Amino acid sequence: MDCIFCKIVAGEIPAVTVLDEESVVAFMDINPSSKGHLLVVPKNHAENIFEISESDLAALIIAVKRCAKAAKEALKAEGITILQLNGKASDQIVPHLHIHIIPRWKNDGLPISSWEMKPGDMEEINTIAQEIKKNITASF
Amino acid sequence: MDCIFCKIVAGEIPAVTVLDEESVVAFMDINPSSKGHLLVVPKNHAENIFEISESDLAALIIAVKRCAKAAKEALKAEGITILQLNGKASDQIVPHLHIHIIPRWKNDGLPISSWEMKPGDMEEINTIAQEIKKNITASF
Repeated sequence: MDCIFCKIVAGEIPAVTVLDEESVVAFMDINPSSKGHLLVVPKNHAENIFEISESDLAALIIAVKRCAKAAKEALKAEGITILQLNGKASDQIVPHLHIHIIPRWKNDGLPISSWEMKPGDMEEINTIAQEIKKNITASF
Repeated sequence: MDCIFCKIVAGEIPAVTVLDEESVVAFMDINPSSKGHLLVVPKNHAENIFEISESDLAALIIAVKRCAKAAKEALKAEGITILQLNGKASDQIVPHLHIHIIPRWKNDGLPISSWEMKPGDMEEINTIAQEIKKNITASF
């Protein structure tokens, strides 16, 4: 296994851990985008959100909630951004599912949600929705 | 109740819905940052991740997984970004918890994870981790 987060989970490489539960570990990002940047990962290897089991995913997001609350309080953060990247096109670097918890402050300059807000083409949106719906139904 | 997402949940204002479950609704963002941009919201009003119950949160993230998979397949997206903003300092606009599902393509130009990667000060990271840990322990 050559996965850096699996090695952290196994204790084979060090990390600054803040939470260690049955199926989840949370540790500090050592390249923080802001003070208190945390990563929350499932212990069972899953490359992305498509691969993780629903029970591991539920445990993961509940741990994220707890860590986000603790980080907000510890740092007196004004906001918290939760971010999870799937695939290289989404800038996922480590191929082991991880959820970023990023404490935020007004005017902190982070680019995360700085995309331009503009109305979409409703006809196109409706067409895409039909396609997505078909795929959701097919997967049940 | 003057919450736009509660009104969508109640069917009082229209939305292009792709999933409607017991505790979760998913619909198209009409100001899409990319083709297929979806919002997934809990039916019970919660302003942010700190306010939602753990059971609603678990149902929400499982719906996110299903919608993300369906969007990826429908659009042949190369990646999927999952984003959830808490507080104005995090650019949260609608004060009803919502999870963004943003289909991604190589070089799509979205700024989401374009922060500068640089190593943090390990002494500061350790100090912050101790504070966060204290708050996690206190909350159990």
